[in-house]
Amino acid sequence: MDFQNMLQKYAELTVRIGLNLQPGQRLLIMKAPIQAAPLVRAIAASAYQAGARLVDVMWGDEGLVLARFRHAPRDSFEEYPTWRTDGMLASAQRGDAILAIFGDDPDLLKNQDPDLVTTYQKTSWKHLRPTLDHIERPTINWTVIAAPVPAWTAKVFPELPPEVGQARLWEAVLEACRLDQANPVAAWEAHLAGLVARREYLTQKGYVALQFRGPDIDLTVGLPRGHTWTGGSQLSQSGITFTPNLPTEEVFTLPHAAETEGVLAASMPLSYLGSLIEDIHLTFAGGRVVKASATQGEAVLNRLLDTDEGARRLGEVALVPHSSAIAQSGLLFYESLFDENAASHLALGSAYRFNLAGGETMSDDEFAAAGGNTSLVHVDFMIGSGEMDVDGIREDGATEPLMRTGEWAFEA
Amino acid sequence: MDFQNMLQKYAELTVRIGLNLQPGQRLLIMKAPIQAAPLVRAIAASAYQAGARLVDVMWGDEGLVLARFRHAPRDSFEEYPTWRTDGMLASAQRGDAILAIFGDDPDLLKNQDPDLVTTYQKTSWKHLRPTLDHIERPTINWTVIAAPVPAWTAKVFPELPPEVGQARLWEAVLEACRLDQANPVAAWEAHLAGLVARREYLTQKGYVALQFRGPDIDLTVGLPRGHTWTGGSQLSQSGITFTPNLPTEEVFTLPHAAETEGVLAASMPLSYLGSLIEDIHLTFAGGRVVKASATQGEAVLNRLLDTDEGARRLGEVALVPHSSAIAQSGLLFYESLFDENAASHLALGSAYRFNLAGGETMSDDEFAAAGGNTSLVHVDFMIGSGEMDVDGIREDGATEPLMRTGEWAFEA
Repeated sequence: MDFQNMLQKYAELTVRIGLNLQPGQRLLIMKAPIQAAPLVRAIAASAYQAGARLVDVMWGDEGLVLARFRHAPRDSFEEYPTWRTDGMLASAQRGDAILAIFGDDPDLLKNQDPDLVTTYQKTSWKHLRPTLDHIERPTINWTVIAAPVPAWTAKVFPELPPEVGQARLWEAVLEACRLDQANPVAAWEAHLAGLVARREYLTQKGYVALQFRGPDIDLTVGLPRGHTWTGGSQLSQSGITFTPNLPTEEVFTLPHAAETEGVLAASMPLSYLGSLIEDIHLTFAGGRVVKASATQGEAVLNRLLDTDEGARRLGEVALVPHSSAIAQSGLLFYESLFDENAASHLALGSAYRFNLAGGETMSDDEFAAAGGNTSLVHVDFMIGSGEMDVDGIREDGATEPLMRTGEWAFEA
Repeated sequence: MDFQNMLQKYAELTVRIGLNLQPGQRLLIMKAPIQAAPLVRAIAASAYQAGARLVDVMWGDEGLVLARFRHAPRDSFEEYPTWRTDGMLASAQRGDAILAIFGDDPDLLKNQDPDLVTTYQKTSWKHLRPTLDHIERPTINWTVIAAPVPAWTAKVFPELPPEVGQARLWEAVLEACRLDQANPVAAWEAHLAGLVARREYLTQKGYVALQFRGPDIDLTVGLPRGHTWTGGSQLSQSGITFTPNLPTEEVFTLPHAAETEGVLAASMPLSYLGSLIEDIHLTFAGGRVVKASATQGEAVLNRLLDTDEGARRLGEVALVPHSSAIAQSGLLFYESLFDENAASHLALGSAYRFNLAGGETMSDDEFAAAGGNTSLVHVDFMIGSGEMDVDGIREDGATEPLMRTGEWAFEA
């Protein structure tokens, strides 16, 4: 497939399956690296052809972020360009479709002062929060995709010449997004139907907890009453069925913030704010991380956990079969959008209100009382592998197999 | 000079002489082509080193503009991404420094439907107006520079391979901006002092009109009572001396909207909204263009004149000596920022209130009654050449030579 043809297929998938953009909507691309311009232009063309009345882009450039860390006054890192988040919020309030295109350098900030990195990150999350509220409810149709850019490619394929690495990463993205299939849109419709069937089965089961067993993993994750599973497509409050991530292989729900017990070892390194954290081990008691270690990046891990009280508790538990195309690629993408679809995973931090029946209209106190976690952060990390077993624990204490050696163990 | 070194000098000139950015200010780059990223990053570094608390960029991509013209619904061209202009206005109101970086394809829209182009342009000007009011008063320190990008380079050097053309255009920009001199900042300080002396001489003279004579030019441009000449540096209402354009070789004031008489032939083609207009001839009566022709792009010229009543009248008259480095380069840049500094010129459309004593605080009616022109547009076109003579006409009817064969004819 030539590059332009591939861009066009990826763009169509993004607009039709990811966003399901409706005629008459505007599209705001709230994040896009400037190096992804060819893809962004293809998406704009595709969106206009689907009837978008306006497509506009809030471009970003990591070179500017680096210039700031290197040269800006130390006391200026709480400054924020609010025109970005004001614009995003106005867009969400108007009912626009919203797209974010990732393509980040996983090592961007690894040599920067961790205090500044923390301030920078907290400031950004604080200003993004009102927009994220719209995205999480969700009031609108939105999606996230990724674009291979040079710095990301260099991290995934450090040994390859840049152009070769770029082509390889595009190929991996293409396969993960089923763009190599004859009819990608039809392939996605079938795949999404499977995820929807599994999420509905799990929601209907109403387990009180999940039990994970694997290499260095013996963990019970409590689930609150009224939790609902999400996966595949979602329905916006505006009545549009969309797919919030491309690719997506997961079904997920929210853990009870106070009911995780046991130990785990992450099955993959975690790329967080420009640093790589390797060999993460966590111990939970009463839902809280009480012990944390890593062979590399432990200080960054501790900073993450210290962001706020909610950063020490879980906000998401997700099941992904080990046979997923992304897992089978054998690649570490250093990008959650891909890596989280290669393995079952958990997230530290904020839970999604849509994972709790009635959660969208609860007050913060009600959501917390029901077991929902709140934090500035939401950071996925992988625990799944081909050696992972998962059981659902029923209210009567009986267990039912959900995964065995990393694969689904139930029919939905 | 290596490329990185040149970028750094250009960045320093922009920050120190163009913006005169003050420690503690923010810098908003309200316009920048994504292809200018290396220059933008150098400017950000330079601005932070000068004490900027935040530098952020509203990037633009002409590829997205083209995608819109090619694929968007015809009735959608009045849609506008107001987050851009809301953000600019908030920035101006906060007292940020504001920078615009041009680098446009002069032919971008030449094959697009002129009705859509007009709607697109009017919509854009309408939303920009509140920000332009701040820029024109000026409440803040701001400047405009240009960055060689591929599409612009291809227009200036169509016969050269892209990399060679790019290097040549950078070289031309470098010379025009005096970056080839040992101390560009000192060279600019001397040059600006010369422009300031000429503008003060002309303001003090208080001519009632200017008389232009040259090839196919016999034109009297009336000047309103209380007009003031601008050129070189300006003083913002916030008390910062800055240089609104880099490069700049002009001194200029506002014509009386009803007092231009005679005929003119433009001395260079005019690039307007993606079309080239060649061999412009205009006839003025009572300040109004009553006859207009061009050998190419006449329809575009007429659309410009038909934008609104003010588009048929003059908003600026500017004197530039033919010996300016830009004129001597012999290049047609297809970019007003450069071409307007190669030749004396006029502008159709809106006049600047700062060119009239007390203009900043006048109501619209008062400004109009004083002779100030108002329009959505402000479009410069060149009339100067090595054969141009200009006289100032005093209130008593006597004339004084201002330029002879394109060069200054008075000592300031």
